[in-house]
Amino acid sequence: MIHAVYDINNCKRVVQASPAQIMAAMRETCRLLGNTARSELIETFQPHGVTCVLVLAESHIVVTTWPEFGLAHVDVFTCRSDSDPDGAVRPILELLGGTVALAGRVNRLALPTPAAV
Amino acid sequence: MIHAVYDINNCKRVVQASPAQIMAAMRETCRLLGNTARSELIETFQPHGVTCVLVLAESHIVVTTWPEFGLAHVDVFTCRSDSDPDGAVRPILELLGGTVALAGRVNRLALPTPAAV
Repeated sequence: MIHAVYDINNCKRVVQASPAQIMAAMRETCRLLGNTARSELIETFQPHGVTCVLVLAESHIVVTTWPEFGLAHVDVFTCRSDSDPDGAVRPILELLGGTVALAGRVNRLALPTPAAV
Repeated sequence: MIHAVYDINNCKRVVQASPAQIMAAMRETCRLLGNTARSELIETFQPHGVTCVLVLAESHIVVTTWPEFGLAHVDVFTCRSDSDPDGAVRPILELLGGTVALAGRVNRLALPTPAAV
């Protein structure tokens, strides 16, 4: 399992980015991961801000924006341990602008490998 | 921000738990957090397994089950730093059974406090 998190501040373009644009960037992240998109959910907030969820066959990608603070939280969680989340997340980062202020990998319980089952 | 993760193995009841039951437990977790549920997404997999997403006004809760391995990954992510995720997650843990094999808090970029803005 890979669970990569990217928290972005000073997001210059977060207010302009539409939920549809964010979801499109997330689909591109999915493609770059070599993962399979299964379903989508967009929840918008007033006066602004959005949570976009892309459920993958491999787990999920979530982007939550807080335009009032110029912040965004990004989770890229995949059971494909051969994926490259740092490369795949770039379309999201480029759309939102800003600086990755905090990035990390979350230690998650791995799925057993076939040999270990 | 609090981003708590709970990875569960030896889930005795994960095969029996329906997606609707899992989502009901997640709604109860939301209530115990003192958070507000905004939208839901359930994605089921064949022959089994489900990803349930509950988008909150405060961020999100995600449960992904891997019944073939007796595993589940649970994320409880909220901008309410006065929430108690360890208490609030209990309905989900009780539904799925099993043992929390890995629990932790993910370091996320905080929202500025009003005084800091």
